[in-house]
Amino acid sequence: MRIEPVARVAGGFEERFGTPRQPGLVPQAQARVVMLAPYDDAAALRGLAGCSHVWLLFGFHCSPSRGWSPTVRPPRLGGNRRVGVFATRSPFRPNQLGQSAVELVKVHEDANWRGLVIANHDLMDATPVYDIRPYMPYSDAIPHAVPPPGFEGPPGELMVRFEPAAERVLGDLSEGDRALVRQVLAVDPRPAVQRDDPERRFVLNLVGCSIRWRVADGVAIVDAVSRLRD
Amino acid sequence: MRIEPVARVAGGFEERFGTPRQPGLVPQAQARVVMLAPYDDAAALRGLAGCSHVWLLFGFHCSPSRGWSPTVRPPRLGGNRRVGVFATRSPFRPNQLGQSAVELVKVHEDANWRGLVIANHDLMDATPVYDIRPYMPYSDAIPHAVPPPGFEGPPGELMVRFEPAAERVLGDLSEGDRALVRQVLAVDPRPAVQRDDPERRFVLNLVGCSIRWRVADGVAIVDAVSRLRD
Repeated sequence: MRIEPVARVAGGFEERFGTPRQPGLVPQAQARVVMLAPYDDAAALRGLAGCSHVWLLFGFHCSPSRGWSPTVRPPRLGGNRRVGVFATRSPFRPNQLGQSAVELVKVHEDANWRGLVIANHDLMDATPVYDIRPYMPYSDAIPHAVPPPGFEGPPGELMVRFEPAAERVLGDLSEGDRALVRQVLAVDPRPAVQRDDPERRFVLNLVGCSIRWRVADGVAIVDAVSRLRD
Repeated sequence: MRIEPVARVAGGFEERFGTPRQPGLVPQAQARVVMLAPYDDAAALRGLAGCSHVWLLFGFHCSPSRGWSPTVRPPRLGGNRRVGVFATRSPFRPNQLGQSAVELVKVHEDANWRGLVIANHDLMDATPVYDIRPYMPYSDAIPHAVPPPGFEGPPGELMVRFEPAAERVLGDLSEGDRALVRQVLAVDPRPAVQRDDPERRFVLNLVGCSIRWRVADGVAIVDAVSRLRD
């Protein structure tokens, strides 16, 4: 079956490292879903305003197709235990499609683009979107659902502390950007197999900054931040 | 992008008419998701047992591709109001892909087939399945989500009454099959534009029977049932 993108994500996460592993973890993350011709017809989005959440069906375009493997090692299980790919949400899947329920901030239309502003997402920049559909609580919300063994509950949260040197740079950012940095680090983007050394530094680029941190005793300690662009 | 089925539904609904319009409406509906080669590797499902619900990403293979239309007329809105296709769950979409959260009854393996037994589904027989992934309550369950205007709450439920003539035939069925008939009729499969005449009869084939009913005053009255096969 051939499928083609109806939209593309703009303003999404720019690096795989630091991109939340699921939606719903980083409320501050906003992006645009820009409709592509011929699907950029205003009528196609009519009736969506007023809806709070939408499903996006998208392609894992940044996860290189390494061929198909029946098992993967999910970060949630420590990164060294193999389970079946269909028991996980790994991007390395037979058909590289993902689905995310994200907040719909608004339906947007101006001379430059038509589409959706979304938040609390987990999407990389330029992600191809194959479908958009409203979240229907009566069939989609199953709060009592039991996830597979080892995936119970949301991923652990870290405290986030900015050291004075980092604070000096971050102080120039908007409240929203500062909150985004906190939320991304709180859900611990470190690879599961690199979590033993409290002195090990990690670096990611976010909100136009290079952010360096380490994790000790459940606290992500940001000790250096530099601006990448102005 | 090319995608290919990893599994196929067996024992799903046999007619579009009567197939629930969403999952979660007909608990008694059971089906099999039969893995296809090369995805029928036992390792690919390892770790899924113990999980209560899975997402299936599937193709609407029974909805003829009529080309793309920016608007559709959903049954929930009475069948005569047009809204944007991305504001609905209509099967008539640019990429004919659907997603359903269904109950995982068990992971199955024997000499004949490997795959999943599912329930509370909305899938037609022989539906191609493109992906299987666990339902994760912390990112998928959003009970407070607000659906688009007009789609609030589950579809209305009808009472279901079996007339004596129908009861005589249905009495030979299993409890489960009788419950399935009740559940399918309770969510009112009638086309939205054919709901005004309380004398109008509808017929659908289910559990090996042809079932005839009409709807008056919020009650689905089953007045004739005949066995199709033994």
